[in-house]
Amino acid sequence: MSRRMRLVAYLKTGPTANHGGGWRHPAARLDDIFNPERYEDVARLLEAARFDAAFFADTVGVPDIHKGAFDTYLGLGGQISYLEPLAVLPFMMRVTKHLGLGTTLSTTFYQPYHLARILGSMDLLSGGRMCWNIVTSATDFEARNFGSERLPPKEERYDQADEVVEACLALWHGWDADAMVMDKASGQFVNTSKVRYADYKGKYVSTKGPLGVPRSPQDHPVFMQAGSSPRGREFAARWAELIFSTPAFKDNSQAYYADIKQRVAKAGRDPENCAILPSLGVVVGETESIAKEKLDYLHSLLNPELQQASISNTVGLDLSKPLPDDDTSSARGIQGSLDRVVLKAKREGVSLQEAAKKPRSLMVGTPDSIADQMEDWFRDRACDGFVLWPTTSPGMFEDFCRMVVPVLQKRGLMQKEYAAATLRENLRR
Amino acid sequence: MSRRMRLVAYLKTGPTANHGGGWRHPAARLDDIFNPERYEDVARLLEAARFDAAFFADTVGVPDIHKGAFDTYLGLGGQISYLEPLAVLPFMMRVTKHLGLGTTLSTTFYQPYHLARILGSMDLLSGGRMCWNIVTSATDFEARNFGSERLPPKEERYDQADEVVEACLALWHGWDADAMVMDKASGQFVNTSKVRYADYKGKYVSTKGPLGVPRSPQDHPVFMQAGSSPRGREFAARWAELIFSTPAFKDNSQAYYADIKQRVAKAGRDPENCAILPSLGVVVGETESIAKEKLDYLHSLLNPELQQASISNTVGLDLSKPLPDDDTSSARGIQGSLDRVVLKAKREGVSLQEAAKKPRSLMVGTPDSIADQMEDWFRDRACDGFVLWPTTSPGMFEDFCRMVVPVLQKRGLMQKEYAAATLRENLRR
Repeated sequence: MSRRMRLVAYLKTGPTANHGGGWRHPAARLDDIFNPERYEDVARLLEAARFDAAFFADTVGVPDIHKGAFDTYLGLGGQISYLEPLAVLPFMMRVTKHLGLGTTLSTTFYQPYHLARILGSMDLLSGGRMCWNIVTSATDFEARNFGSERLPPKEERYDQADEVVEACLALWHGWDADAMVMDKASGQFVNTSKVRYADYKGKYVSTKGPLGVPRSPQDHPVFMQAGSSPRGREFAARWAELIFSTPAFKDNSQAYYADIKQRVAKAGRDPENCAILPSLGVVVGETESIAKEKLDYLHSLLNPELQQASISNTVGLDLSKPLPDDDTSSARGIQGSLDRVVLKAKREGVSLQEAAKKPRSLMVGTPDSIADQMEDWFRDRACDGFVLWPTTSPGMFEDFCRMVVPVLQKRGLMQKEYAAATLRENLRR
Repeated sequence: MSRRMRLVAYLKTGPTANHGGGWRHPAARLDDIFNPERYEDVARLLEAARFDAAFFADTVGVPDIHKGAFDTYLGLGGQISYLEPLAVLPFMMRVTKHLGLGTTLSTTFYQPYHLARILGSMDLLSGGRMCWNIVTSATDFEARNFGSERLPPKEERYDQADEVVEACLALWHGWDADAMVMDKASGQFVNTSKVRYADYKGKYVSTKGPLGVPRSPQDHPVFMQAGSSPRGREFAARWAELIFSTPAFKDNSQAYYADIKQRVAKAGRDPENCAILPSLGVVVGETESIAKEKLDYLHSLLNPELQQASISNTVGLDLSKPLPDDDTSSARGIQGSLDRVVLKAKREGVSLQEAAKKPRSLMVGTPDSIADQMEDWFRDRACDGFVLWPTTSPGMFEDFCRMVVPVLQKRGLMQKEYAAATLRENLRR
């Protein structure tokens, strides 16, 4: 079969989205953010459109880097997780049969036994549809919630992440698929010769096991990652089956794509089993001029200070104050986001502080022209698909599913049906 | 209003129950243990019968104290959590409106930010119906899953538990109830003057906050606890709104009841807001002789070695070997369970090793005689209600709800309707 475009939806618990004006849009629902139906509706919508998966982006804290306080970002509606994503995933699982479901969980703050147990449980309950977006966490405001003033250095965090993933696999693989006997007549419940201790002893984490959770139909959750630094890319090459990237431009994404695929091969894995998915935001209209006007309207809802606060908090650098010589050496945040803003500022000839006020790039146009742009990136190996983030939630997902998906399917780029039962099997088709 | 009996159901993820023969019973369902419907069905059943709440008992590990291995206990169907309870609670939440929903989470293994976030999220999503069974964990096999060879001493664990609860409250109280503004026109999303850092710094745990999760309708989850040692009772007196106890006999429970109520008053709380709920297992039949025969049948399904393994693993002492002079000083497990078995062995004049082979005491009889026995404990202040554990799941819950609940309701002992919207408010009616 020819190459197939993978589509994953980027979700947040709550109504705030990557575009800081999104929650003010008429199509943004605000009254149901603590209501399970909100999350069920979006899951049904994405499955009907044959998205591969939906995952929750997450940070464990309220950012306060911008101006050293949380007021601007939280007050104006910056993107926050208003609920722990684990608490809403089961609702979404219950109303879907094929959609992959993922969440972000940090290897820096959580122990492998906890991670393996909650993810393994959800993998079983969903029939093998879970995905783990593995992060090492990137900001000190998260560390302070877990009792440390600062995060460990990046290299150490990734070394620990390697251990955590190894330990989780040792726990998941502690159960053979046929260990559960449950024979009422003989009284044998488990064939314990098919259950093993994990006995994992690392430098950072240790766990004995066995896990109480049997083997899932897809063996273990699909691994997603967003490595950008050299160490992050090495980690992604070793583990990631889905890579979420945030390139500023197409050429930039092509270079990343080539680098990662080569690293994956070097790590002894099939590069086809590691899909690179840049983030994509769209504004779609019936005509180019409607789309253009919709974009202007959306941007009019965005307070530039909120956008700047958003970049400050993501890259770990207070951009409310002028930054002498655009020196980013003190940044303590997400490398990929910093790279993107630095590159944009450079190409546009503005300061980092000014660049941070501008909204993220969006694909704008008719269903056909958006499909053209997506196809262009896909054909030219800038990506294997996209992570679609909502400008407004759930409004933008509805627009995209209704208008753009049929075009992509008609062109044979996107799946019309799910080909397999589990997320991993389906991603390999 | 006169005193009302509180009823809470004791659940486990999976089919294994407190009675080791339960899963072999014809009324035990085994084919749906990884299916959300299993948990939805029991939640609907318990709400229809007007149970106050259902909670999941849990330990984070597969016990291997008996014979130093997990084979006997796991192999013969000892009681294990086959799924992380957090993964199934949302299913139960979704099909109920009033039933309180709880789970067990350890203050020894989890950080306050994680606990406050997941419990606070579920409290919001359930409209204020969550309950937290606070445990400090009692066995080293759990510690080994989280990277330590042994648990810290009990006193330290309780000191840490006090801090964890204080830290969680500081996080939950960081949001005023009216902090969420979400005004599209003005662009104000949160009134940040109503959000505060937790700034909690303890000896064992620290967390800065603020939490990302707004205030729940019941302020914070209801606290459940099972303190048995003097330090455990002190902790329960300070925090617990529901106490789960495991007394061997009625007189024993009356003494516990009087002690706890007096401790609660001394801690400056209203003893009426701390309900003491001993564990209750029942076998109910249309006639006394049917009930007696049902009991015999159930016991015939229990392998005495499994029962012994179960006690070994709970009290933290390998009872497969003879225990010289019944010396329990090396026990590292749950104090309340040890006290119960020791007392039973003494009163029955058998060794601890022999006592451990006998099944847990059950109330056996017709609906009326079971109601009589429950009423007797309740009236004589041996309890404020019960935690009902299943001999078989879900079969026994069905029997109890169909046959015993109507008798209790007719006698005016049990609520016929839920009186309030949140779990805490309802427990205070």
